Amino acid sequence: MAKQPILTPQADDFPRWYQDVVAKAELAENGPARGTMVIRPYGYSIWERMQAEEDIRIKEAGAENCAFPLFIPQSYLTREAEHVEGFSPELAMVTHAGGKELDEPLVVRPTSETVIGEYMGKWIQSYRDLPLLLNLWNNVVRWELRPRLFLRTTEFLWQEGHTAHASAEDSNAYAERILRDVYTDFMVNVLAIPVLAGRKTAAERFPGAINTLACEAMMGDGKALQMGTSHDLGQNFSKVFDITYLSDQGSTELCWTTSWGTSTRMVGGLIMAHGDDQGLVVPPALAPIQAVVLLVRDEGGAGDAAASLAAALKGAGVKVRLDAQVATSFGRRATDWELKGVPVRVEVGPRDLAEGLVTLVRRDTGEKWPVGVAEVAGRVPDLLVQIQADMLARATAHRDERTVNATTVEEAIEGAKVGFARVAWDLVKDGGEARLAQDAVTVRCLQTAEGGLPTSEDDPDLIAYLARSY
Amino acid sequence: MAKQPILTPQADDFPRWYQDVVAKAELAENGPARGTMVIRPYGYSIWERMQAEEDIRIKEAGAENCAFPLFIPQSYLTREAEHVEGFSPELAMVTHAGGKELDEPLVVRPTSETVIGEYMGKWIQSYRDLPLLLNLWNNVVRWELRPRLFLRTTEFLWQEGHTAHASAEDSNAYAERILRDVYTDFMVNVLAIPVLAGRKTAAERFPGAINTLACEAMMGDGKALQMGTSHDLGQNFSKVFDITYLSDQGSTELCWTTSWGTSTRMVGGLIMAHGDDQGLVVPPALAPIQAVVLLVRDEGGAGDAAASLAAALKGAGVKVRLDAQVATSFGRRATDWELKGVPVRVEVGPRDLAEGLVTLVRRDTGEKWPVGVAEVAGRVPDLLVQIQADMLARATAHRDERTVNATTVEEAIEGAKVGFARVAWDLVKDGGEARLAQDAVTVRCLQTAEGGLPTSEDDPDLIAYLARSY
Repeated sequence: MAKQPILTPQADDFPRWYQDVVAKAELAENGPARGTMVIRPYGYSIWERMQAEEDIRIKEAGAENCAFPLFIPQSYLTREAEHVEGFSPELAMVTHAGGKELDEPLVVRPTSETVIGEYMGKWIQSYRDLPLLLNLWNNVVRWELRPRLFLRTTEFLWQEGHTAHASAEDSNAYAERILRDVYTDFMVNVLAIPVLAGRKTAAERFPGAINTLACEAMMGDGKALQMGTSHDLGQNFSKVFDITYLSDQGSTELCWTTSWGTSTRMVGGLIMAHGDDQGLVVPPALAPIQAVVLLVRDEGGAGDAAASLAAALKGAGVKVRLDAQVATSFGRRATDWELKGVPVRVEVGPRDLAEGLVTLVRRDTGEKWPVGVAEVAGRVPDLLVQIQADMLARATAHRDERTVNATTVEEAIEGAKVGFARVAWDLVKDGGEARLAQDAVTVRCLQTAEGGLPTSEDDPDLIAYLARSY
Repeated sequence: MAKQPILTPQADDFPRWYQDVVAKAELAENGPARGTMVIRPYGYSIWERMQAEEDIRIKEAGAENCAFPLFIPQSYLTREAEHVEGFSPELAMVTHAGGKELDEPLVVRPTSETVIGEYMGKWIQSYRDLPLLLNLWNNVVRWELRPRLFLRTTEFLWQEGHTAHASAEDSNAYAERILRDVYTDFMVNVLAIPVLAGRKTAAERFPGAINTLACEAMMGDGKALQMGTSHDLGQNFSKVFDITYLSDQGSTELCWTTSWGTSTRMVGGLIMAHGDDQGLVVPPALAPIQAVVLLVRDEGGAGDAAASLAAALKGAGVKVRLDAQVATSFGRRATDWELKGVPVRVEVGPRDLAEGLVTLVRRDTGEKWPVGVAEVAGRVPDLLVQIQADMLARATAHRDERTVNATTVEEAIEGAKVGFARVAWDLVKDGGEARLAQDAVTVRCLQTAEGGLPTSEDDPDLIAYLARSY
């Protein structure tokens, strides 16, 4: 009799499989208030690793972390017309505090452009203060009618970067730099997710931006997920919040600003990009636990051997966990580590050990093979590098297999129902986006013919990537 | 003519001096909504170092980080009577969201015992699930009528730990362990602030706790600051949120829970414990910048020498910053680094350099002396260790000088107006706390005669520490 699967198989119902992984791998649960989320320790440890890796890259790009308030006076948001129009339906409002009704309601920040604009205006005096490069790790609230854990929650955790520059060239270059050196580099090399870096169409832009760049990834079911965005805000916020500087010529000039963000949504992307019917698969470069040493039974010196192996792996720079909880059955623990997607298992049992062997198991391929005890600590670091490379290669192959080159909009829509479709933007641009919407397809991003970032939508040679999306 | 001081001298007006330091060292500013705070990059980098050092100790104590929602249904808070009574006047309420009035208002969390209690109740099944040790790094809101940056703000950043245990002994021991191994260790050895670890009186307890332990520090003006608290919640929250476990005997038992927290208030404590008329003084073990290499003028190879020195110090494991901004006057930059409290300055100028020398300056004592260029990288690490030890010794001496042993309540009150007063708790306990309140004095904590943590208030030999406080 076949074993009952722990998770709904992906092929049966992908959204349900996703929910099952989030619950069974103990990543997160629904919070008590609508659309909120409790992130459990294992899920949070993945988010902490994402933060750590991004934070290094953000600091290398010169931005400094700081904190701005959770509450923003309502009047701040209404100053920039497009911005308030974009966010109004999603706002949560504090109307009472300290036992009284407030004179002016406070908005729980959906994003911080407006309050930061106010302070940039105060802090920036001259060209010597530019660029001003700030980043915040915090929580924001956007009321969600159809919440899904990690992907779309009322409150989410994220980083939001905000910068001010002396020229349009500088702000544009910085928005591109963040997309390339921070987001794309992190997603490709740490998350092992190949992302398309492109420009959003005017219809898909951030409210208040003159240009939105995005990283778009393909999930296991062929749908797209927007993993991060970087916005050139032009002078829209500078005008409203009076962010000016004295140039080296002595004239007063408006600044050019950017903003950019990535969130706990990336945890959802990680699950759907790499997960399989056995659960999550975490790439080694991200994994909070890269290898688990799993004691099968504490007999024949296996307990000591397992502890020594864990110590040796730690010494070799591997993030290792020892699981010697033999009160729980070996099968159940093995399944649990598989569910949690730990890249490598080292199974230590008395029978193998009598022959000087332990079993190595790759989570990504399921391969198992015997290895001499003394060789494990030397082998695992290389194996982790190999797994990282293989995971990126597999995700890339999956995306490429599901990407079609279409020559008509109808053909593109068919392709976009099951993956990505590449089509000339010229065929779509005049009224085409409305046509796509009928099939729940959107333009995920635009690229130049060479795969670069377009400087405008008007270039006749642009390629549009179409897909259904989360 | 004497130079105009940048800061109000401490002796003239300590609170104003504090405000000046916060502003001039660019640590923080008021936010636009009442009592909120903008933490600027330098202030935030100090908070990040506090987080990093505490986080190591929290993880060593076995707790795992996770996240709970910002919004808590109002009904959760009202379930524990003392808890809601303690927090009601301070709550901020979300009444509208997504363009509609909510059926039930949401509380912006003032602390998370209630929502975590609900989930602990779901997650804990048997004694095997205990202890459950959780920690959160997040933001909370308590409406403040008399806000002061870092010390008392409407929104603040903190960590809140929440744990569940199988017995009263376990929860009590864990609350003590956090106070000792996490908070006291961090405050003494990293912040260089000697803290009194003691028990709060019933009047000063956390709403819902059966025992509150605290770390109390003396500030430069002789007042006390509560730097962190650790609460034994007994079974109060377990009863309300049905946090039960199946014992190894098969019986259903209520858990015993704890909670414990430290916040951005510690930044205020750091400023007031070590600061002087020149500004902040940051202890080396905490400092985000431990040494600044300050180029006086870029002549005679000084620019290259400064860059080489910065690289050599980095190689020696020192957190170093190179300041080669010679467009700004040397004096102004030196004053600014002094204001920011960077422990060591290495001043590199062409005149000294011609003799193979640079100048080392200690921020804490103001001492300056010439050192051979080749010796700097070897000397600074030891110097940082010395400064750390000296700062703790000075803060300890300051506290001891301002602590009196009193034999009557009146004598104790006089001592508590300018520092700490030690007095027999027996003299204070029956109605004495109300008498102290007339002079704005409170019992900061109780200790046993040997300086340990009391197990109850009833021990006749207890010592009470009295002070005015922030």
